[in-house]
Amino acid sequence: MANLTIKDIAKICGVGTSTVSRAINDDPGINPATKERILRVVEEFHYVPNNAARNLKLTENNAIGVLVKGLNNQFFLSMFRIFEEELGKQGYTFVLKEMASDQDEATVAEELVKEKRLKGIIFMGGKIENPDVTLKRLDIPYVLCTVAVNANVRESASVSIDDEKESYRIVDYLCKLGHKRIAIITGRKNDYAVGGLRLDGYKRALADHGIAYDANLVGYMKDDIPDFTAKNGYTVMKELLESGEDFTAVYAISDLTAFGAYKAISEAGKKIPDDYSVVGFDGIDLTEYMTPSLTTMAQPKEDLAKATVQLLMQEIDGVETEKKVVYDAAFIERDSVRKI
Amino acid sequence: MANLTIKDIAKICGVGTSTVSRAINDDPGINPATKERILRVVEEFHYVPNNAARNLKLTENNAIGVLVKGLNNQFFLSMFRIFEEELGKQGYTFVLKEMASDQDEATVAEELVKEKRLKGIIFMGGKIENPDVTLKRLDIPYVLCTVAVNANVRESASVSIDDEKESYRIVDYLCKLGHKRIAIITGRKNDYAVGGLRLDGYKRALADHGIAYDANLVGYMKDDIPDFTAKNGYTVMKELLESGEDFTAVYAISDLTAFGAYKAISEAGKKIPDDYSVVGFDGIDLTEYMTPSLTTMAQPKEDLAKATVQLLMQEIDGVETEKKVVYDAAFIERDSVRKI
Repeated sequence: MANLTIKDIAKICGVGTSTVSRAINDDPGINPATKERILRVVEEFHYVPNNAARNLKLTENNAIGVLVKGLNNQFFLSMFRIFEEELGKQGYTFVLKEMASDQDEATVAEELVKEKRLKGIIFMGGKIENPDVTLKRLDIPYVLCTVAVNANVRESASVSIDDEKESYRIVDYLCKLGHKRIAIITGRKNDYAVGGLRLDGYKRALADHGIAYDANLVGYMKDDIPDFTAKNGYTVMKELLESGEDFTAVYAISDLTAFGAYKAISEAGKKIPDDYSVVGFDGIDLTEYMTPSLTTMAQPKEDLAKATVQLLMQEIDGVETEKKVVYDAAFIERDSVRKI
Repeated sequence: MANLTIKDIAKICGVGTSTVSRAINDDPGINPATKERILRVVEEFHYVPNNAARNLKLTENNAIGVLVKGLNNQFFLSMFRIFEEELGKQGYTFVLKEMASDQDEATVAEELVKEKRLKGIIFMGGKIENPDVTLKRLDIPYVLCTVAVNANVRESASVSIDDEKESYRIVDYLCKLGHKRIAIITGRKNDYAVGGLRLDGYKRALADHGIAYDANLVGYMKDDIPDFTAKNGYTVMKELLESGEDFTAVYAISDLTAFGAYKAISEAGKKIPDDYSVVGFDGIDLTEYMTPSLTTMAQPKEDLAKATVQLLMQEIDGVETEKKVVYDAAFIERDSVRKI
């Protein structure tokens, strides 16, 4: 029986070999009942068609799952292109899966691993509390890419920038230019991922410059509007402007949010940077073409994406290496900030 | 042999069953030589582990390939989310693959079909000359989504708007407001896909209003800059402005291109809509937050994406239905256009 052929299966089922072939290859033209009968026999006799056997070994496992929190993030989009290219060089395709911001990474990953026989997973965005525990039990190689993790993570491979540090640099820069009343448009109130980390950097920089933290200058993104969008930035900025609080600069923790803030400032009849200096974060392509062009902190997306794929390949190969790769972001000074 | 078990394989290989399991499940912890030896035996004896047999039948084919020309297109991005959701409801995952703008769809699809045992393909963007011939021979269900096709396509399922007609509406609107010198920022010179179709609509509207077509008012996107980007729109608009040609309106055939045009107009010290009226195309979220907000032709992305998935399911099931679904776009009047 080890040499059971397609002819044997056809004989058992009482059909022609082409019909068996169509059943196996999932040809839509075949009668569903016939197909099911054939597939039952195929399974019963553990028959593996040659190309399926080859697929099982060579290609079925050649997919990498990319699990994303925030698929509408322009910044992630540019990274997908690099993933696609770099994974392609290694003979992998990638399967994209979006997670809702409140979904648990490990649970979604578990489902995906069941569903597809994946070779590895890239997690993007959001925050994962205890990846060493929750993700390790998946028993599949993975890399966290721009995911906020705790400092005590040891076993999980991760690639990111230091959000707290880069955020500090922005606010430090504004302080050095003489700004003392600096508003921030940060993530949602319960955002302990990049939103939380960037807010931490803001607070530390203010403290280092002897400026008291003022909760009235902190605008949290709205829960009922997709976060990190122009619409959310517009709405929060409008509230800050209408609050009557006095400030000379606003730091929006994402470029698209800054884009929305521009609109609110313009509608209020105010000018950038004359009335309000604005800084963004991420360095998406659009920022160069905003009016005025936006000063921002650019994430090294190409480095991040390439390092993620490289680290994942090492995880798959079981190579022992540095688990935590942290890149510097690049501060780009443009025309949206003035000296006080 | 039909009942060959994992124990039999372990015995033949002289290893424990857990090692066989690790080899089959591609566990990174296993010695590569051992793994290869086990897999050779697995293949030789046509052994199919239970769950692999199940996967073969139930899940291996549960992937839909999405082949995209123009992955950086914001408009496509919003559709991926809907694909992901709608395909998920049907129990499918999706595999994303980008094509270079000069790659042949059928060739890329052929490779992808070989690589993964896909159940269907969604083609997005670009233009496909003879899908009835080139794609039908792939022998896999597929749908063309926002792909430019010839009118004589009969056998290929497709979902799109009527680019020529909607483009006509934009230029007709500008003419009715009194604009006679209307520039266009269109696709690359060799773009016979949406670029060509939208340029056709522009020409027809001018003709219907008795306005002579002036090649000096046609700005083609640059070949050396990614097309449909802000940078390309900025560069082309700058040239139009510096050409000394007289015009009162510019129609950019994508919103991001219009975004770049805004920048060039602002740098030239001119105002929108006072000096130049601007219209975009696609209706991406950003346009609402541009200053002034951009008048644009919004594609019904949710309808397009849902219809694409629905049509693909029908193709997979072999249901005979309408092959060509065409949606109307929605013209959104905002603040970037004035009456002459």
